[in-house]
Amino acid sequence: MTAFLNPLTIEPRVRDALDEDLGRAGDITTFATIPAGTPARAVIAARKPGVIAGLALAEAAFRLLDPTLGFAPRTTDGDKVVAGDIVAQISGAARPILSAERVALNYLCRLSGIATLTWQYVERVSRTSANICCTRKTTPGLRAFEKYAVRCGGGMNHRFGLDGAFLIKDNHIAVAGGIRPALRAAKANAGHLVQIEIEVDNLDQLREVIEEGADAVLLDNMSIDQLREAVDLVAGRMKTEASGGINLDTVAAIAETGVDMISVGALTHSAGGLDLGLDVEVGGR
Amino acid sequence: MTAFLNPLTIEPRVRDALDEDLGRAGDITTFATIPAGTPARAVIAARKPGVIAGLALAEAAFRLLDPTLGFAPRTTDGDKVVAGDIVAQISGAARPILSAERVALNYLCRLSGIATLTWQYVERVSRTSANICCTRKTTPGLRAFEKYAVRCGGGMNHRFGLDGAFLIKDNHIAVAGGIRPALRAAKANAGHLVQIEIEVDNLDQLREVIEEGADAVLLDNMSIDQLREAVDLVAGRMKTEASGGINLDTVAAIAETGVDMISVGALTHSAGGLDLGLDVEVGGR
Amino acid sequence: MTAFLNPLTIEPRVRDALDEDLGRAGDITTFATIPAGTPARAVIAARKPGVIAGLALAEAAFRLLDPTLGFAPRTTDGDKVVAGDIVAQISGAARPILSAERVALNYLCRLSGIATLTWQYVERVSRTSANICCTRKTTPGLRAFEKYAVRCGGGMNHRFGLDGAFLIKDNHIAVAGGIRPALRAAKANAGHLVQIEIEVDNLDQLREVIEEGADAVLLDNMSIDQLREAVDLVAGRMKTEASGGINLDTVAAIAETGVDMISVGALTHSAGGLDLGLDVEVGGR
Amino acid sequence: MTAFLNPLTIEPRVRDALDEDLGRAGDITTFATIPAGTPARAVIAARKPGVIAGLALAEAAFRLLDPTLGFAPRTTDGDKVVAGDIVAQISGAARPILSAERVALNYLCRLSGIATLTWQYVERVSRTSANICCTRKTTPGLRAFEKYAVRCGGGMNHRFGLDGAFLIKDNHIAVAGGIRPALRAAKANAGHLVQIEIEVDNLDQLREVIEEGADAVLLDNMSIDQLREAVDLVAGRMKTEASGGINLDTVAAIAETGVDMISVGALTHSAGGLDLGLDVEVGGR
Amino acid sequence: MTAFLNPLTIEPRVRDALDEDLGRAGDITTFATIPAGTPARAVIAARKPGVIAGLALAEAAFRLLDPTLGFAPRTTDGDKVVAGDIVAQISGAARPILSAERVALNYLCRLSGIATLTWQYVERVSRTSANICCTRKTTPGLRAFEKYAVRCGGGMNHRFGLDGAFLIKDNHIAVAGGIRPALRAAKANAGHLVQIEIEVDNLDQLREVIEEGADAVLLDNMSIDQLREAVDLVAGRMKTEASGGINLDTVAAIAETGVDMISVGALTHSAGGLDLGLDVEVGGR
Amino acid sequence: MTAFLNPLTIEPRVRDALDEDLGRAGDITTFATIPAGTPARAVIAARKPGVIAGLALAEAAFRLLDPTLGFAPRTTDGDKVVAGDIVAQISGAARPILSAERVALNYLCRLSGIATLTWQYVERVSRTSANICCTRKTTPGLRAFEKYAVRCGGGMNHRFGLDGAFLIKDNHIAVAGGIRPALRAAKANAGHLVQIEIEVDNLDQLREVIEEGADAVLLDNMSIDQLREAVDLVAGRMKTEASGGINLDTVAAIAETGVDMISVGALTHSAGGLDLGLDVEVGGR
Repeated sequence: MTAFLNPLTIEPRVRDALDEDLGRAGDITTFATIPAGTPARAVIAARKPGVIAGLALAEAAFRLLDPTLGFAPRTTDGDKVVAGDIVAQISGAARPILSAERVALNYLCRLSGIATLTWQYVERVSRTSANICCTRKTTPGLRAFEKYAVRCGGGMNHRFGLDGAFLIKDNHIAVAGGIRPALRAAKANAGHLVQIEIEVDNLDQLREVIEEGADAVLLDNMSIDQLREAVDLVAGRMKTEASGGINLDTVAAIAETGVDMISVGALTHSAGGLDLGLDVEVGGR
Repeated sequence: MTAFLNPLTIEPRVRDALDEDLGRAGDITTFATIPAGTPARAVIAARKPGVIAGLALAEAAFRLLDPTLGFAPRTTDGDKVVAGDIVAQISGAARPILSAERVALNYLCRLSGIATLTWQYVERVSRTSANICCTRKTTPGLRAFEKYAVRCGGGMNHRFGLDGAFLIKDNHIAVAGGIRPALRAAKANAGHLVQIEIEVDNLDQLREVIEEGADAVLLDNMSIDQLREAVDLVAGRMKTEASGGINLDTVAAIAETGVDMISVGALTHSAGGLDLGLDVEVGGR
Repeated sequence: MTAFLNPLTIEPRVRDALDEDLGRAGDITTFATIPAGTPARAVIAARKPGVIAGLALAEAAFRLLDPTLGFAPRTTDGDKVVAGDIVAQISGAARPILSAERVALNYLCRLSGIATLTWQYVERVSRTSANICCTRKTTPGLRAFEKYAVRCGGGMNHRFGLDGAFLIKDNHIAVAGGIRPALRAAKANAGHLVQIEIEVDNLDQLREVIEEGADAVLLDNMSIDQLREAVDLVAGRMKTEASGGINLDTVAAIAETGVDMISVGALTHSAGGLDLGLDVEVGGR
Repeated sequence: MTAFLNPLTIEPRVRDALDEDLGRAGDITTFATIPAGTPARAVIAARKPGVIAGLALAEAAFRLLDPTLGFAPRTTDGDKVVAGDIVAQISGAARPILSAERVALNYLCRLSGIATLTWQYVERVSRTSANICCTRKTTPGLRAFEKYAVRCGGGMNHRFGLDGAFLIKDNHIAVAGGIRPALRAAKANAGHLVQIEIEVDNLDQLREVIEEGADAVLLDNMSIDQLREAVDLVAGRMKTEASGGINLDTVAAIAETGVDMISVGALTHSAGGLDLGLDVEVGGR
Repeated sequence: MTAFLNPLTIEPRVRDALDEDLGRAGDITTFATIPAGTPARAVIAARKPGVIAGLALAEAAFRLLDPTLGFAPRTTDGDKVVAGDIVAQISGAARPILSAERVALNYLCRLSGIATLTWQYVERVSRTSANICCTRKTTPGLRAFEKYAVRCGGGMNHRFGLDGAFLIKDNHIAVAGGIRPALRAAKANAGHLVQIEIEVDNLDQLREVIEEGADAVLLDNMSIDQLREAVDLVAGRMKTEASGGINLDTVAAIAETGVDMISVGALTHSAGGLDLGLDVEVGGR
Repeated sequence: MTAFLNPLTIEPRVRDALDEDLGRAGDITTFATIPAGTPARAVIAARKPGVIAGLALAEAAFRLLDPTLGFAPRTTDGDKVVAGDIVAQISGAARPILSAERVALNYLCRLSGIATLTWQYVERVSRTSANICCTRKTTPGLRAFEKYAVRCGGGMNHRFGLDGAFLIKDNHIAVAGGIRPALRAAKANAGHLVQIEIEVDNLDQLREVIEEGADAVLLDNMSIDQLREAVDLVAGRMKTEASGGINLDTVAAIAETGVDMISVGALTHSAGGLDLGLDVEVGGR
């Protein structure tokens, strides 16, 4: 599994998050109660089972505040952990460790939560050829990180944005005057490395798509029977994607229809944070 | 209910989110399939019951792409809606409406999800004097918006950042040499408008805090009995806040102990998005 | 022809360019010599034949300095002009017109120069099925605008960046252990809307690609004969792209080999600016 | 030759250019096909003769992606190279070398192209006392870098922006009520370190300028004879600058008229990139 | 004395200030006259007595231009110096030392000037229990640094911004319908860690505040007698703050009335810079 | 008097200042106590005599928070006011008026304070031909605004930054090997619109400068007699500038020596704010 991320996006985002937390006066409690030279050692540990994602963001949180802090990951993004597992260790000055803790955990818990939920979906379909993928229902400002977390959990990435591929939906079809003219408009404007997917609600639409040709078809809110018939009709001529009303209880049956992709908005819009904690031992030597 | 927000933070954040979605080439599907002048009317409607928060962000998403779009809210932040209720109407050119849809909904669904979960907690404690409040376990980059959403749901806001008040935790106490020296260090450095709260795990610590004096005490992971006894001990001399292991099942009993505040990290770190949809009618006149 | 551009990228870039020109003290000559209320009318006209691209950037330059300026385009991006043709008219206060002139022209001349050169290539291959496309050899900071200009000139866009599609080159092949493992690594990691192109230098490599399968193949620095044979070998199973050593004299013969795409770095890295001038009539009534 | 550049402008600009190329998901091809620890050695070499400019920008591109990369320049900005000359060597991890290659070359080729063209002009006038200088017809966002490149090629810099000096043109003269009032308005507002130049089209205007006094005069679109006469009239009392319709064929004759400066917009608006290539040897030890 | 500052705010601000000074072409004088490798040693020394504040900003100015420069502080923020005292020493390349000098001193002189003036006020009230504090009358863009300097001079910080605490002034009272409804509106909306202060002009208003309750009261423009009576009335039930018309001549008498805080806008809006100089010894060994 | 300012710099700076004051939660007092629709009228009036500068910044503060606010200036930058004079009137919604008040005044008071102090210097030398000018001892981040204010007060502007002109100081002279080589190095690198000034401490140095030639000479810390002799020696061949130890008591005598420019760091580093107040009448009609 290779999870993709532009590494240059990490530092500016983490810096913004630290600024958001430190505000104008900084961590006044820590500055008032902990002397400047006090050493500390900290451990990030899992309190619930899950899949880790976002270690580089957590590391950046600590090291932007103090480049001399040691950050030793004991896991790698994509690793599965159980309660009690050590995720990473931090050592150095107590002040920056305590000041960066919340930002580091806010990133790590959220992204690990997404990876964990993705992995739960992936497990349910592991005996099929279906892939789980995310949508554009992501947190504003965190899309690339969240799509990275989906990959860490074993899922695939859908479009990163509106410019990544054509995805022709009902409104586009309606204005363009039908499935054929919509597909033709897309083809006329698509560079040779840009794919075209189109959304259909029923099998009649699907037949029209098959005749006209496309790279992928999104089968929206179809029943299991419809999905099965759709996969038969397509017969490998394009990728098939199921979407709509999918949850952990229904995903296996959907995967067994033979669709290639199952897109799940909840991976990013409704994953709870993974429960991770940071324990600090301050002082000593 | 007054929910606080620096209005200048809206436009830059929404612009970033639009850029994140539009990427380098913009909404290629809409540009290829929908002619430039096509008019449209859209409705954002609730598909589940909940509390609305974030209308100004949704409006900004549409109007940053096209200042001539009409955005008519049919609700106000803090309003309760049921499935089918219309939240807002948008009219104008089809292209910017379709291109901004996802960003508008990503903000509105997430913030309304937080407001909705907050409201569920608030309802459970409505027969007590306890207030529900949030924590700093927020999404990096969205803290002010998420804290605003908590207010829309009837909750109160805890610190906006590490600079907002002193919150002395176990590590601070340990390094400072105990509760008394920690509190004195804070008092020596606190401006006259800065409050001091301190976290305690047991009643012995609490007694020490009461003797030394503070503005608020955080009662961490205490049992119902301990909380009740703590409230008695404090006897109104400072604010009391319960935290740790609180969920919708346990919150009422905690509130009945008489604590002033109950802080719930899940309000922001694990609220799912409220299910809202945008239906567009493109073309016509 | 639909040319794609994220409209939100225009204002920040043009603002930066104006700041670059106005510096700290602004347009001192105009402020010293032209009174504040003086009216003016200006005309942007072509001094050489070409294709226009970038009108929205020129308009933004004038209107960011003074939102009350009138900007009336007399052409549309993609229009062909001859010497003397009026491209746009500007009216309003003389000061902002003179202060914004250079930035407006710097954008418009450069982008129109790219569109013009693209169109010259496109014309040479117009009797074939080949498309002209650009590369990533663009001006840092202007890629999206320059790719837009290529479209205005009738060309197609290659990848907008390294994240837009897989393009496996010789170094990737060498490290991955050959064409097959490289293609398999890409396929294993490609989302369902991400295409895979691979570069080959000879027909043996091409045969391997055909066996393994890919979405497109880049035929690098091949002779006309090799290209023709390559197109025959591929037989429509994937897109073919010719690149390397292409200029206005050679492009027609290359197109006649039957390749689908011809990529030309010079479109963006060596197009001269189109000669456009702004004539101002200041004052009077 | 000292070429001037604010060193703090390099990193932010190169970072933007890398972001523009890496996009949201980064270099997906390299990540999928090249393992994380793979070493590489790369060489940037000239494929055509020219003058190098922009090594610091190329270095920044590599080192922003990976500060541990070695970047060993084998030339210095301003050096002349012939085809085959090694410009710089890079060593370290293969991934960041391949990911940064395009941005590094896009800067280096463009700036070296400008330096090379400047040098060609400088050579043509080397037996005269004339200097070649650039204009404000630069690429938006790259002005300071492009003016630096002109210096590397042996040219001089004209104003960096509208705030750098007074340059009174025909429109300013017309509104101000003539050459004298325009010059007086400038003088009344010029700090003691700000120069005043004025553009004239004919010798009558020039005589008026000489009487009123200025620091420099721009002789626009004059014939060789007019220029010669103008230089005689000025007789060293101010700097003389020729502009308009200058190219490599005409520049020598213009220089021989005795003008001090010859400004050439083409240096920046129409220089093609210098042909430089990066060859990578990946793997091995 | 602990002075609070978000450390992440230093680098971006100092970078902006350097850019402001270096402009587009950088330090042309130093580049033209001083060879690249020339070493230098510099000393920042006090030319007048005062209190130092802002060493981290001065250090950042030097090190952002050249990370290899040595910066050895000989004082600590908050230290008192007399004329001739060495504040810090800098060593390394001459060019960046000379180029950064002005920005380093501009920060250090201004912040030390504020610390010095604060200390003069603090000294005048040192035999009383009153604290000197600043206001929001700060330099736009420098508030956090200026409030930090006030702390270095021994003063306390008032609100960092409008969101830091409630401060109910005459206009708020007027619109809210009086002191009581204004205080109740604030209490109804204040989180448990947010304080409420209210401004009063006379003792009748003060009595109303005492009955209704608040955390602090601002006694605006009261005479010494009124202040004394106000302190008696309050009797320790809330913090008292005197403001208005306070200067070094009057502050002692005001402090002796027993008020807790004395806020002085002049600390930040009218402190002159402390006279510090940088002496450089360039070259040699 | 024409004061120069890049108008595009206003909005971003004022936006930053508003953000600095509004913080994360905004103006909580105003939101809690003043209903959304409440109207207000406000007047900015002078409480002390002075010269106004910065009206556009004050206007921007109000209108960025609410574009519908009316801002009617009753003065123009550069106008002299006496106590009681109305500077500007604001009308519209009470909330944004109160929230923007402090930022508007912080800019207006500071810049007017600089204009006022400048004007006091200008008045002292009004019977001479000397001009008062500022230095680079400005507030970081506000240089362009402060230099604009100096112009509003009747002063002239020295260099805006290190890139604006050559100013050769003692360290440059020492390293370059003396006055002549330093001047020659500058001349060899100066574009034709860049001036060269050099600092001298005594008349011997001055004679060397006169022989070698320069555009201006800075006579540093010279006595009145020395200055008079220096002016005689120069005899109009270059501009003369006096600096060092100048205050309102000494400036007239210095001006009478015949120097062209007198530079005064205190104009920007030690001007107190002009006392301006904003009176609001909230509500009613």
